Amino acid sequence: MNNSFYLAAVRREKPLVHHLTNWVTIYDCAQVVKSFGASPVMAHAPEEAADMAGLASSLVLNIGTLTRELIAAMKIAARAANKKGIPVVLDVCGAGATPFRDAACADLIEACRIDIIRGNASEIARVAGEAVRTKGVDTGEVAADLVCVARKLAVQKKCVVAITGKVDIVADGKNGHKVLNGHAMLTHVVGTGCMATSVIGTFAAVSENLAEGAAAGLSCFGIAAEIAAAASMGPGAFKQKLYDTIYALDGETADAKQRIA
Amino acid sequence: MNNSFYLAAVRREKPLVHHLTNWVTIYDCAQVVKSFGASPVMAHAPEEAADMAGLASSLVLNIGTLTRELIAAMKIAARAANKKGIPVVLDVCGAGATPFRDAACADLIEACRIDIIRGNASEIARVAGEAVRTKGVDTGEVAADLVCVARKLAVQKKCVVAITGKVDIVADGKNGHKVLNGHAMLTHVVGTGCMATSVIGTFAAVSENLAEGAAAGLSCFGIAAEIAAAASMGPGAFKQKLYDTIYALDGETADAKQRIA
Amino acid sequence: MNNSFYLAAVRREKPLVHHLTNWVTIYDCAQVVKSFGASPVMAHAPEEAADMAGLASSLVLNIGTLTRELIAAMKIAARAANKKGIPVVLDVCGAGATPFRDAACADLIEACRIDIIRGNASEIARVAGEAVRTKGVDTGEVAADLVCVARKLAVQKKCVVAITGKVDIVADGKNGHKVLNGHAMLTHVVGTGCMATSVIGTFAAVSENLAEGAAAGLSCFGIAAEIAAAASMGPGAFKQKLYDTIYALDGETADAKQRIA
Repeated sequence: MNNSFYLAAVRREKPLVHHLTNWVTIYDCAQVVKSFGASPVMAHAPEEAADMAGLASSLVLNIGTLTRELIAAMKIAARAANKKGIPVVLDVCGAGATPFRDAACADLIEACRIDIIRGNASEIARVAGEAVRTKGVDTGEVAADLVCVARKLAVQKKCVVAITGKVDIVADGKNGHKVLNGHAMLTHVVGTGCMATSVIGTFAAVSENLAEGAAAGLSCFGIAAEIAAAASMGPGAFKQKLYDTIYALDGETADAKQRIA
Repeated sequence: MNNSFYLAAVRREKPLVHHLTNWVTIYDCAQVVKSFGASPVMAHAPEEAADMAGLASSLVLNIGTLTRELIAAMKIAARAANKKGIPVVLDVCGAGATPFRDAACADLIEACRIDIIRGNASEIARVAGEAVRTKGVDTGEVAADLVCVARKLAVQKKCVVAITGKVDIVADGKNGHKVLNGHAMLTHVVGTGCMATSVIGTFAAVSENLAEGAAAGLSCFGIAAEIAAAASMGPGAFKQKLYDTIYALDGETADAKQRIA
Repeated sequence: MNNSFYLAAVRREKPLVHHLTNWVTIYDCAQVVKSFGASPVMAHAPEEAADMAGLASSLVLNIGTLTRELIAAMKIAARAANKKGIPVVLDVCGAGATPFRDAACADLIEACRIDIIRGNASEIARVAGEAVRTKGVDTGEVAADLVCVARKLAVQKKCVVAITGKVDIVADGKNGHKVLNGHAMLTHVVGTGCMATSVIGTFAAVSENLAEGAAAGLSCFGIAAEIAAAASMGPGAFKQKLYDTIYALDGETADAKQRIA
């Protein structure tokens, strides 16, 4: 698989990526999608969530600042997305931190078809039923072998599972990809996990094979981070250059720097 | 009309611009107002929306992430603004995308006096009753002559209509202005349409003639975009420089680069 | 007291700082905490507010875009924080602008133990019962001597009071600190008051003496602003460099540039 294939598809098809996301990183979820050349839209009113999903090419759900009302609207949007047959991506942001958050994840996965679940190691371990304790939304340590956890959850929920971290893991029931692109500076910027999920939603919208599309998206995002970090002194400059790099990323660079195992 | 006249008034009067806006671009709505030297305030609780509008010099309503509760609060704020006699600007963000959004626009325009309506071509066409289909919040193609659409809506609703795009059109029942300032890079940054509306609200707050004030605001914003784009490699750097340029924009430059037909 | 002592503690302990804040500056509240090396978390659902506060090392409440529901959730979180014994910081953003806002401040201070109150001069004067009229969330003029106002409120509410402005004042019932660090460019960026409160929450989380911790946090933030402003042309570049400077701030610089009287 080549990054350039998927990157070109995103720019050609300019998919509309509908989000119901959190209030902290909502701007950055939108801007990362737009920087890749696609079209973000955010709409969470229950009265229009289904209609907007009906216009979209993928749906991103992110529970970062969930409320009961927002979870209800997410279900409405996800059912419309399921009916239309577009991919639904769920960011299990902060899973494990509170019982309310764990219940919301379980509820969403039970009530709708979720095509891709993304989280960090401790969040995914929690959703997969591994014993783990997260501290807010930052990465905890997880003993279990991550590829196994991802595959187990993928089989159990019949979906693709993406664990992002120093190495990103993308697994479906059959195959696994390890994405080695990325940079530690991503951990110093709020919202890069959420942005990764929006990138997955963008690439999934144009991919036949969701796991491959997700891996290509994470690789492109990681490559942009590598290039941006090399020219930055800190998180402020880095984030700005991340957008500039994504916007200017060409297929040749995206393939030459691709590190997917 | 000279941009410098209106720009100087904004900086001298430092109007308080009250917003009920969306959760995606709410920061940028505030920062663009502040960069011009005015004072933004955001307050959407129904209990205080009228009181805050009573302190303000203009009111900006933006339906980007509308909910039923937010529309109700917008009406409360708008009625207070109407009573006080300050201009009310409505951004019909995403009009045409869903019936809920179209109904909200119609409801607001019916229930309150809206002094200025801003949208892109397809959004305004929808509000004006032209047949058109938007894809999320990005610009669709509209066949009808835009100046006619703007004037028709302006006469029908007794207000100023601003259509932003490659060329911005500002029309009231009698006159029309075409603002040729701006830059394509604006389309690669999330929220520049919302920011344009907040700029209109800022300039309207200090203008006797709302259409002229709106045109001057859009021209100044477009000039800043031209200057910022010339020094930027992508949307990240561009947005930062847009704020820096607005902050530093002097009347001489604002007049020399003004392109209003 | 040395800034480096507190800065080192923040970076060593990496406290989790729970926020219930406003939708305008929520991202920047999080990013400033992260740039200092701590962990922000934002969660406002009433169902999880107490659980999240139970995981945290401090709690920041900010009424910038308050609603009745958000105030109720703040009380839930604050009571859990009180029970756990972690510091609760309240940003009385916009106090004095509307009766709803004043009532919310009074309600929160009455219903929970607030350990630190931060506002600008006019906001604090209002909370302290001085006659004053604010215009939105920007600083008004206050005649009364600020140190007296701060001390009076501190004694009355048995808490630390921080008034930020050209000179920051931090007072508890016994002592007062004047922080002379800072830069006028902070007034041209939306959210720097909110960020100051989040910084106070971050430093308070690792401080035995809350007033000293708050003063050290404000001094470090002000020093970063001084350094960032020296390298910036406007508010866009300044904000980016502010994050970069905070991220890279070393103890030696933080002590050498410290100006606390």
